[in-house]
Amino acid sequence: MAARVTIASGATWQEVAADRQKYRDATLAAIEPSIPDIPSPSLNTISIAKDILTTEEIKITESKVEVLVPQLAKGDLSSVTVVKAFLRRAALAQKLTNCITELLPSRALERAKYLDDYLDTNGKPVGPLHGIPISVKEHIGMKDLDNNAGFIGWVGNTAPQDCHILQILWNAGAVFHARTTQPQTLMHLETSSNLYGVTTNPYNTTLTSGGSSGGEGALVGFKGSCLGVGTDIGGSIRSPAANCGVYGMKPTALRLPVLGWLGPAGGQEQVVPTIGPLSTSLEGCKLFIKTLLDSKPWLKEPTLMPFPWKQEDFFKGKKLKVGVLWDDEVVKPHPPVTRALKQMVDKLKSTGNVEVVEWKPYKHDLAWEIIANLYFCDGGKEESDLIDASGEPWRPLSEYILKNPHVETHTIPSMYKATMKRDAYRVAYAEHWNSTATSTGPNGELEGAVDVILCPAGPGVAPKIDTAKWWGYLSQWNLLNYPGLVFPVDKVDVVKDGGKESHSPRNENDKENWELWQKYGAEGYKDAPISLQLVGRGFEDEKVIQAFEIIQKETGVPFI
Amino acid sequence: MAARVTIASGATWQEVAADRQKYRDATLAAIEPSIPDIPSPSLNTISIAKDILTTEEIKITESKVEVLVPQLAKGDLSSVTVVKAFLRRAALAQKLTNCITELLPSRALERAKYLDDYLDTNGKPVGPLHGIPISVKEHIGMKDLDNNAGFIGWVGNTAPQDCHILQILWNAGAVFHARTTQPQTLMHLETSSNLYGVTTNPYNTTLTSGGSSGGEGALVGFKGSCLGVGTDIGGSIRSPAANCGVYGMKPTALRLPVLGWLGPAGGQEQVVPTIGPLSTSLEGCKLFIKTLLDSKPWLKEPTLMPFPWKQEDFFKGKKLKVGVLWDDEVVKPHPPVTRALKQMVDKLKSTGNVEVVEWKPYKHDLAWEIIANLYFCDGGKEESDLIDASGEPWRPLSEYILKNPHVETHTIPSMYKATMKRDAYRVAYAEHWNSTATSTGPNGELEGAVDVILCPAGPGVAPKIDTAKWWGYLSQWNLLNYPGLVFPVDKVDVVKDGGKESHSPRNENDKENWELWQKYGAEGYKDAPISLQLVGRGFEDEKVIQAFEIIQKETGVPFI
Repeated sequence: MAARVTIASGATWQEVAADRQKYRDATLAAIEPSIPDIPSPSLNTISIAKDILTTEEIKITESKVEVLVPQLAKGDLSSVTVVKAFLRRAALAQKLTNCITELLPSRALERAKYLDDYLDTNGKPVGPLHGIPISVKEHIGMKDLDNNAGFIGWVGNTAPQDCHILQILWNAGAVFHARTTQPQTLMHLETSSNLYGVTTNPYNTTLTSGGSSGGEGALVGFKGSCLGVGTDIGGSIRSPAANCGVYGMKPTALRLPVLGWLGPAGGQEQVVPTIGPLSTSLEGCKLFIKTLLDSKPWLKEPTLMPFPWKQEDFFKGKKLKVGVLWDDEVVKPHPPVTRALKQMVDKLKSTGNVEVVEWKPYKHDLAWEIIANLYFCDGGKEESDLIDASGEPWRPLSEYILKNPHVETHTIPSMYKATMKRDAYRVAYAEHWNSTATSTGPNGELEGAVDVILCPAGPGVAPKIDTAKWWGYLSQWNLLNYPGLVFPVDKVDVVKDGGKESHSPRNENDKENWELWQKYGAEGYKDAPISLQLVGRGFEDEKVIQAFEIIQKETGVPFI
Repeated sequence: MAARVTIASGATWQEVAADRQKYRDATLAAIEPSIPDIPSPSLNTISIAKDILTTEEIKITESKVEVLVPQLAKGDLSSVTVVKAFLRRAALAQKLTNCITELLPSRALERAKYLDDYLDTNGKPVGPLHGIPISVKEHIGMKDLDNNAGFIGWVGNTAPQDCHILQILWNAGAVFHARTTQPQTLMHLETSSNLYGVTTNPYNTTLTSGGSSGGEGALVGFKGSCLGVGTDIGGSIRSPAANCGVYGMKPTALRLPVLGWLGPAGGQEQVVPTIGPLSTSLEGCKLFIKTLLDSKPWLKEPTLMPFPWKQEDFFKGKKLKVGVLWDDEVVKPHPPVTRALKQMVDKLKSTGNVEVVEWKPYKHDLAWEIIANLYFCDGGKEESDLIDASGEPWRPLSEYILKNPHVETHTIPSMYKATMKRDAYRVAYAEHWNSTATSTGPNGELEGAVDVILCPAGPGVAPKIDTAKWWGYLSQWNLLNYPGLVFPVDKVDVVKDGGKESHSPRNENDKENWELWQKYGAEGYKDAPISLQLVGRGFEDEKVIQAFEIIQKETGVPFI
């Protein structure tokens, strides 16, 4: 391999980017049989897969994790076959949505061969993920591969070893087949960088795939991966999952291993980021989390809280109580989101098996002020310096978030004060939640309280490029460190969503968001997946998943 | 009550202190029958109780929590009788060791009466702590009472309500009978302030009771309380417990409620402090922790990790494996500590029921550098300003810790770096612990690893006043956020500990510590309790307690 072109070696940022793209393209070119260029693809790219891939490849890549696992474990499907199919579909996803930083054909096929041989020899799989191809957001580093977190200035840095989480997935039998794009700074709800340009939405390429795990969103949305690894500090797993119509979970932070990942603001503890899954199925997300927790990652990474995967049935002899948050009272969601929420609520109410109540938001505007301030306690200096080090231009959404009006350059005392403000908000929100209880048990436990909050995953469906600005529906739960599960419900329909609705804007963010809908309408967001979010209290990840399983059974969601 | 004398009202610091002492003395004077002054007490004050209190009062106050609880619950003892006895013994403790900021006779007796009436009327106790008197370190505020955390400048501040933890204990049936002293800044391993002067050790009043929960240490050591509430960020529960020969536990931080306490550096997250119990029995500590966790405090205080009290038997079908840390290789412990440790190890080895191995310290000097730096990220400005605001003099140990050579005035980026250094150390220590495993289980779990570390609780027994300088044996486990349980083993004996031992000092701290032993010898520390510490991995509090129960059964500790 030729020496890497880097800023340190004297190259311009453009040369560094060109070299990275050339390198990526070479990894695509190694895919066999090769994937052709697609000259004038339709805006909705999903059906193109059927024109390019074999029937077997379509079948494999459209299988969910829970279908592939037993087939691979029994040897009904070889890992090599599965990995080849996903490699080809991932290469096609790259050509259509620009979601890949590199494919890993030689590593992946060598690993797949090893797994097939292991199964042959031992008659049993390596672990619960035997043969499952997994895609990984780039800043979760892999041994000896470039690790730049979206900054031109960091190109040339390589990970000394696979990140802790990848070691565990590897030991469980996973195959890493693709690395995916992320935005400059990792702090957009879109995926746009000077290294690779813009990642688009496979359902409508005029829209963003979301971000910052937007490479994962587009790739899993296109089914070039059935399980991907993303990261989330303000919506970065849930935005791409929601935008691309897949399942995505931001677990409570401090549960899943993050040791070894690369990003700015290391040592920052005010808002703790987390890793989590994106998958074509809920079972994929569940298996991912359970596999990681079963390995007791806290023994190697003592920052993690030693909560094992909770097996208990949270709703045994108890009716699920769902609080519905229609609108955070800061930015009103676009009509398709409200329609999807209404569909869910109507179905839940019709069976009577689930109790549905209204969830009143508690100062979500204040929550945004607090978190937008705490993201960059150094005033954003580290990120700014990293951008400026290479002379690369600022992407519009880097400008938007790093220079948001709530950012300040903290001293230690002012940061302590801001942290206390966060804690006071968390206490107030806990009280708000506790106030939904209908009685108090013998040990002071709250009975009859809301179990989970059903809410939007954003103020609209996948936004037009560079318009994803209101983080509140996602970052709200990062500030509180509540787990959030995103799931597909429906898609934008020109007829159903074509009506006119008027709304008097409450503030600048609300105005800007509503004007987008007025400008583009249902036609502009055609075919975009509509997703919603289910949120639980801190460390109640398993309860959120169980609640969703009940909701899925009751409603039959998704409706497409 | 007269208006409080405060700095804000124009008083000098001396006038403020004099007023607080006058107020305290008035609360003592309200105790009936009154406690006389003791003109020339012996250095070891313990036996004086028998001269002053009635036989019944001696019997009650020398009963452990687990003995009192069922008697109170059944009505065999009235709460009023119990509270009166402890109030009188606490008043005597004040006269002998200067450990009280105020007694609470009217509140406590009113509460006791309520509890007795409740039991009469309902035929059942209010909760698991029905009628148990509990003493509380002053900075854990009580409604409408002064709340100053040891700073003259904060006198006049009152708590708007009882702290969260006190609310829970109250609901469980507790009676608060005494508030106890703490040092200026809360950051000494002794208890010396300009408000109340020096708190001394009931076993030898030339020695410190330890700190910063030194009022609790002296009071519980003198049996003026069977259960007290302390706080610990570097040894502040364990130092006084160890010095005064009682049980004390620093639970893993983020388990027990702290909401509402007062102290400097609020919002600091680099080294998380915790609340915990001091008690005349292990059962007292256990009941305290279990009662708090059973109330699910995380629902009101979302910073806490929702770990319920773990009921599982950690050593079912498994031999306890103890790692013995003789010496942290920074400051060598005085001979009595090593003798006590040797007694324990000999007994453990003799039965063969417990596996005993050596625990090699991993860079405990580095651990001290990291934590001593992280305590005061603002360079100690907040504490310094608080002292200087009233013109009160700096106590020697405030000077020692706030101006220690590792303190720096951090910027946000330098604090992030220091935090990452902490995390790297934690990972390295976890690896060090993992390396004691003898095999790896099917899910990667470590088998045969050390379960708990048995180690000193300090570099000697209770130090002479103003000489408690080496925090390493305690702060080590705060940096790692490991739980630590301190328990009494023996006492300094002029004959057994009278031998001469030479030691070549490794560094200044070691030199200073060893010279103290050379200067004072066993005679100087006569009758001082010798205590040891049992430490577990993060959040393994219940495992540490179970391990201690096994060790206690095997060795019969304490040996006095």
